[in-house]
Amino acid sequence: MTTFSQKSCFIILALIISPSVSATRASKFQAEKPCKRMVLYYHDKLFDGTDKDKANATSATVVNASKLGNSYFGMLVVFNDPITNDDKFHSPPVAKAQGFYFYDRKDTYTAWFAYTLVFNSSEHKGTLNIMGADLMTEKTRDLSVVGGTGDFFMARGIATFQTDTFQGLYYFRLKMDIKLYECY
Amino acid sequence: MTTFSQKSCFIILALIISPSVSATRASKFQAEKPCKRMVLYYHDKLFDGTDKDKANATSATVVNASKLGNSYFGMLVVFNDPITNDDKFHSPPVAKAQGFYFYDRKDTYTAWFAYTLVFNSSEHKGTLNIMGADLMTEKTRDLSVVGGTGDFFMARGIATFQTDTFQGLYYFRLKMDIKLYECY
Amino acid sequence: MTTFSQKSCFIILALIISPSVSATRASKFQAEKPCKRMVLYYHDKLFDGTDKDKANATSATVVNASKLGNSYFGMLVVFNDPITNDDKFHSPPVAKAQGFYFYDRKDTYTAWFAYTLVFNSSEHKGTLNIMGADLMTEKTRDLSVVGGTGDFFMARGIATFQTDTFQGLYYFRLKMDIKLYECY
Repeated sequence: MTTFSQKSCFIILALIISPSVSATRASKFQAEKPCKRMVLYYHDKLFDGTDKDKANATSATVVNASKLGNSYFGMLVVFNDPITNDDKFHSPPVAKAQGFYFYDRKDTYTAWFAYTLVFNSSEHKGTLNIMGADLMTEKTRDLSVVGGTGDFFMARGIATFQTDTFQGLYYFRLKMDIKLYECY
Repeated sequence: MTTFSQKSCFIILALIISPSVSATRASKFQAEKPCKRMVLYYHDKLFDGTDKDKANATSATVVNASKLGNSYFGMLVVFNDPITNDDKFHSPPVAKAQGFYFYDRKDTYTAWFAYTLVFNSSEHKGTLNIMGADLMTEKTRDLSVVGGTGDFFMARGIATFQTDTFQGLYYFRLKMDIKLYECY
Repeated sequence: MTTFSQKSCFIILALIISPSVSATRASKFQAEKPCKRMVLYYHDKLFDGTDKDKANATSATVVNASKLGNSYFGMLVVFNDPITNDDKFHSPPVAKAQGFYFYDRKDTYTAWFAYTLVFNSSEHKGTLNIMGADLMTEKTRDLSVVGGTGDFFMARGIATFQTDTFQGLYYFRLKMDIKLYECY
């Protein structure tokens, strides 16, 4: 028995001492298992400049495209967009996305986003802060969730975008698969 | 005694193996006890366009508001604002806040900030990078400290904003309560 | 022997229990040893507005400088800039930097950056998201790597900028020393 307990202690030692230096991260992250996951829909209805669109529009172009290339390079949009649990624009929003995007490629469409998901519902109160490149021509693309507050205190993770539909410049819908890998 | 050491080893096992998967985060965070806290005042003195304001102004509107709504939707301001330890604009600055904000709501005032606190004093050298929504109508609101350099190497935390005073568009002061929960 | 195993168990206890509260961060970070390091060159070739520059330019001014000060305060540039392993503009790019910068000081030159390094090569696939102040008058300055995706899943670290060369406003090259201290 003495031998057993000695051995088991050495096994414990091996288990602990080695990970304590380098594997902190491994224990934090299980790729298959985010600590929190939400699939959300983002609706961007760009203001067309007409009076009758003022009630419905959720975003506005505030900087026009430059003359570089032919794919809106530099056009910058500020948004306050509804976030819903399904793909219906008129579903009750579960959050708002407040932030901006701009187009940033000469020859095809890519964009760059920075925004805050503001939750204020019975289910969640708090924010998630997100930034990254939206490589629109790829089926899915990953942005970074760089911080959170309230229910999402100090969260980090990945926001995977997928274009769900679009109608020219003036309406598009993204499926945002939010996976948090650091939760407090 | 053999039995004791066996038992104690099992207790150790229980203590270690279970937290190693899920509790790393809990040990990192103690809500009541940030590893570093600073209460700072941010002064934004928006350039009014006149020559005599050039010396005092600390920020400038670089993108005008869109025609969407009546609360400056899309107006974007670049700032290089003094940060002081008390609420006096003329106190010696302990840091500069360099970045931008824009207004992003049609029917009331909300803004979105991204900026760097640049410290270069005898007390602190380094930067903190901050982003998030400023829901101005709420008494306090939380943004994310997403990174730091120098004395604040790799820091993360929360920046809680509180409007201390404002004079129309052209001067406002925020109390910024910076709480770091990850310090190296 | 019994005594030994008891002692060794207590030693293990001491090793584990104390760090579990406060030293997670220490084990994550070894200042001398990033978990990943890359020295890269960033080339910004600002569009001069002429037709013949359209092919070469990699960035465009989308917001003109304000009238505050004499150092381009508020001028905002959107870029899609090549990243190379050496300082040659025509070397095959190993990544693209997509994002923006703006100038933000009245009396000298400082800028603020937020961008994504997009890697799509045989060596790396994924992105790094970076933000912070570029205090151009200092020899080196540190920005924050606030997140990553793909090969750089959930990474954090520091991006140290050094001006390698510049030709007025229309071309500059930065050496970007990317040091990741959190890798998964």
